[in-house]
Amino acid sequence: VTDLGHPPRPEPLLAPVEKPGRQDWSTWPRYEAATLGLRNYWYPVLWSRSLREKKPKAIRHLGEEIMVVRADGKVHALHDRCPHRGVRLSHPMATQEFPGTWSCCYHGWTYDLTSGVLVAAITDGPDSKMCGRVSVKTYPVEERAGLIWLYVGEEPPPPVEDDIPEELLADRTLVVGKRTTRTGDWRFGAENGFDHGHAKYLHRRTLWTFFRQMSAYSLADTVDEDPWLTQIKSSFGYQPEYPGLGKWPRKMKRITYKFPPAVVSIRLPGILRVKYRTWNHYEWWFPQDGERHTYVQVIATRQNVLRRALFKLWYYTWVRWVFHGMFNAEDALMVDVMDAPPELLYRPDHNLIDWRRHVDDKARPQPTDGAATGSPVRVTRRRSSDELIAEGIES
Amino acid sequence: VTDLGHPPRPEPLLAPVEKPGRQDWSTWPRYEAATLGLRNYWYPVLWSRSLREKKPKAIRHLGEEIMVVRADGKVHALHDRCPHRGVRLSHPMATQEFPGTWSCCYHGWTYDLTSGVLVAAITDGPDSKMCGRVSVKTYPVEERAGLIWLYVGEEPPPPVEDDIPEELLADRTLVVGKRTTRTGDWRFGAENGFDHGHAKYLHRRTLWTFFRQMSAYSLADTVDEDPWLTQIKSSFGYQPEYPGLGKWPRKMKRITYKFPPAVVSIRLPGILRVKYRTWNHYEWWFPQDGERHTYVQVIATRQNVLRRALFKLWYYTWVRWVFHGMFNAEDALMVDVMDAPPELLYRPDHNLIDWRRHVDDKARPQPTDGAATGSPVRVTRRRSSDELIAEGIES
Amino acid sequence: VTDLGHPPRPEPLLAPVEKPGRQDWSTWPRYEAATLGLRNYWYPVLWSRSLREKKPKAIRHLGEEIMVVRADGKVHALHDRCPHRGVRLSHPMATQEFPGTWSCCYHGWTYDLTSGVLVAAITDGPDSKMCGRVSVKTYPVEERAGLIWLYVGEEPPPPVEDDIPEELLADRTLVVGKRTTRTGDWRFGAENGFDHGHAKYLHRRTLWTFFRQMSAYSLADTVDEDPWLTQIKSSFGYQPEYPGLGKWPRKMKRITYKFPPAVVSIRLPGILRVKYRTWNHYEWWFPQDGERHTYVQVIATRQNVLRRALFKLWYYTWVRWVFHGMFNAEDALMVDVMDAPPELLYRPDHNLIDWRRHVDDKARPQPTDGAATGSPVRVTRRRSSDELIAEGIES
Repeated sequence: VTDLGHPPRPEPLLAPVEKPGRQDWSTWPRYEAATLGLRNYWYPVLWSRSLREKKPKAIRHLGEEIMVVRADGKVHALHDRCPHRGVRLSHPMATQEFPGTWSCCYHGWTYDLTSGVLVAAITDGPDSKMCGRVSVKTYPVEERAGLIWLYVGEEPPPPVEDDIPEELLADRTLVVGKRTTRTGDWRFGAENGFDHGHAKYLHRRTLWTFFRQMSAYSLADTVDEDPWLTQIKSSFGYQPEYPGLGKWPRKMKRITYKFPPAVVSIRLPGILRVKYRTWNHYEWWFPQDGERHTYVQVIATRQNVLRRALFKLWYYTWVRWVFHGMFNAEDALMVDVMDAPPELLYRPDHNLIDWRRHVDDKARPQPTDGAATGSPVRVTRRRSSDELIAEGIES
Repeated sequence: VTDLGHPPRPEPLLAPVEKPGRQDWSTWPRYEAATLGLRNYWYPVLWSRSLREKKPKAIRHLGEEIMVVRADGKVHALHDRCPHRGVRLSHPMATQEFPGTWSCCYHGWTYDLTSGVLVAAITDGPDSKMCGRVSVKTYPVEERAGLIWLYVGEEPPPPVEDDIPEELLADRTLVVGKRTTRTGDWRFGAENGFDHGHAKYLHRRTLWTFFRQMSAYSLADTVDEDPWLTQIKSSFGYQPEYPGLGKWPRKMKRITYKFPPAVVSIRLPGILRVKYRTWNHYEWWFPQDGERHTYVQVIATRQNVLRRALFKLWYYTWVRWVFHGMFNAEDALMVDVMDAPPELLYRPDHNLIDWRRHVDDKARPQPTDGAATGSPVRVTRRRSSDELIAEGIES
Repeated sequence: VTDLGHPPRPEPLLAPVEKPGRQDWSTWPRYEAATLGLRNYWYPVLWSRSLREKKPKAIRHLGEEIMVVRADGKVHALHDRCPHRGVRLSHPMATQEFPGTWSCCYHGWTYDLTSGVLVAAITDGPDSKMCGRVSVKTYPVEERAGLIWLYVGEEPPPPVEDDIPEELLADRTLVVGKRTTRTGDWRFGAENGFDHGHAKYLHRRTLWTFFRQMSAYSLADTVDEDPWLTQIKSSFGYQPEYPGLGKWPRKMKRITYKFPPAVVSIRLPGILRVKYRTWNHYEWWFPQDGERHTYVQVIATRQNVLRRALFKLWYYTWVRWVFHGMFNAEDALMVDVMDAPPELLYRPDHNLIDWRRHVDDKARPQPTDGAATGSPVRVTRRRSSDELIAEGIES
């Protein structure tokens, strides 16, 4: 418990001026431009078991319309639009008429699932001149760790393993989790994940933290452990005295269990890792469009067969509802209503600044690089250090 | 049954390029401009029996707001906006206060139903100076064949009979049908109606075609039988072998009834006629606004009294549900999601090209003639023949 | 009863031209600019009893997002946005953590309710440098006559009593009423309130007027009784004969009660007063945004204790439903669908013109004064008298 013995509550300034704060993200132009996400990465777009044979799913991923379909066990991804008259290939009336192909429901245009090439236009007869001359775009797609990984980008895809935390690929690893669609900008989701400030306050009354005495505040540095950025917490205040106001929280919890501290890291293109003692939690955020993003939560644990079975039982009866459900629903509420910039960052947001800088410096090439930002109404002039200090946090 | 004995499935090109296809409809500028329909035509906007005495209907037709009202048996159509403060004349609280007039519900401004002239402003007293000096626009309107026909345009209206298939006007003709509002561009509706390619594929599993063995493909020419464009089918393939893929359909129907072939025609401003042996089916598509259109299906048959009664029974117990309902609902699904241009037309679409050309050449004068197209984002440059060939179908 | 013995119904002009009418409100530029209401006034935004201790309400008022909260009995109003990351301070998860303050639910940023100054950023510890350097805007707010009065503006606020009809503030006055949100422009609401033309026609069949024989028309002058504009009615026609049409209304009511005439007045910033014999009715309209406005109805009566109790009983069992409910719901229907300008005003609208002129001349300074109007698409040229006459009413 900390009691810093601060002087009494500061007098409000006679004419307190609301600081204007940061008006845009032009300090990190590549980050600012990434409204539709970071391309040239593999993302876990669906759970393998959710994609049943010949029951395609239409997804919106990084602003593109994509049909994902399983045929003869193998997963394929195609641009979800028949070039004939613009009907979706994933329309519920669409079917497979020949092995290894997929047919548009309107006129029976039939595409090879691997190449995307038109191999028959059924209602034009076998001698149709369109065959071999038309194709729809296909996307690289892989299955690993019970998830379907999709690659959208302009660069040749790296091995999918490059973009999967290696623990998920190891033998004997149990992978369980949940995929949801959330409203709000994907960057708010990722920033909220790496933000240690809110955790102590927003989540102080949820069931998951019922037996944890969280600190009122802490300090945290960011350490680069390529490819992860990791938070190192350095100071904790459990019931500090706020000048002129009093102690907070007013009551400490009576019964608590001393949980070992979790270590939080983040990496490109927006993967959070929370390390617990015997298991790790991962999260992904990636945009569907400018208003919604896909949110994937995964828990991985490397155990023997019996412990895996017990862990699975614990996950489906407790963790999935209390942690992946109730706890993270509080974050979803905030991500949904966040409205920034303008924003006015404070000391605990140093970690977010480090993450933004990291994305801006290290993200794979993006088509928007060097172009004007995706947010044309915002000023894109780089600020001087003095201006940044004047704006708030970066002192 | 056709088996053309084609060579094996064509190798996908090493680098198959998705053909860009047609990016706009600037080849047919008058057709392209007709987003809000073709003016200076009579359209069947309502069924007569649906308009009850002094129960006005508010319709949106070719982008205009129109009140249609029956008073003393006669139908009138007025611009649906009181010029005083902009309240709709068709508001559910509006009434008729004097014979031959209609009063706005707000202040009692009272219009002559035939001329549209203000004949009383009730709450301004009998000496109101507004009378005779204000009017609302009226529209020509007629009743024929159980339908209410409305004329919107700048040219003097031709006789309404000019725009009604003459069969509907003949003695002893039974006219039955259905009016619905559909989403999507009206031109997609009309094109889908005249498109023989989709019929064989999209509708292959509906109840209406349960006992019909439709061909997998056919060829069709377009013949100009003024005012109709008529499809003449010249070749049919019932279970062809598609190179490298196999026969389609995989199974022929076991029990079929040999229906006599139907002959399909279309005419301005967007009327389809399907000739069966003893009855004909007609369809109209005309826009309400840029997102919805009115879709009218009519069946006409010329029979003696007894047969008319039997036909009517058959219509209301079977045809209305299975053909006008289920069958055409499949078309509605496609019209709703079509998204073109861009589009990539194929051989069976020759008939559509003929229809577009016909509209572009023969439609009555339109206010947009000579002006820029209604779709300012599209290129309006006329293509050369070479370019058209390079784009796809027009070889 | 008036029968002016007019000549027969005027012949419709051979070519009746719809008069174009008034295309914009540029005659009254300050009135035209007031789409988001008149600032620098006190408005009754909430009923006192609806705001319970520490249960904040988020309101939208004159286009601004404001949190109104009661703490220790006193009402406070703050800009409803935490400047940190843009989360609403009125979020249902937000709480009071220290007396006299309010904390954002996301990171515990804590604001002094009176000054709006940040007094703690809980998760940044007691030594946070943000304290005293950040604030959210606060708004002047008062409670009078059972209502919460809010002031939004750039000028120093006058005493709240300046903007409250004095009767409401008197001892022994009973104040009852109803607050609702309505669709449509607030000016349509206020104009409808002061419009005596519609009252006779629109409301002729509602329960509230069941025993009143309203005139078919009347004339009314406007008299300036600072701060009120008051209608003086000068002529009544109960069943006049409209030339060529007949008498209206066709039937006079058989059983009527002779109610003493009510006197209708209006004042800035949009308060209507209807004086009955023993009680007065007041209405306010003020915008939430460009599409919705707050509509407050108040009845005030100055009586002894017993009569107050009886009046209250009458209000809650009859007046609230039949007058504040059914009667004024008819107005709401009109205000919702009014669509002007363009508009074509008539003789009874003289009172509205007087009101518009009054607002334009007398409203307190507005930030838009002298700037272009809030409606950039409209012409803002001042019309000459000749043009105004040619347009309609102002002859």
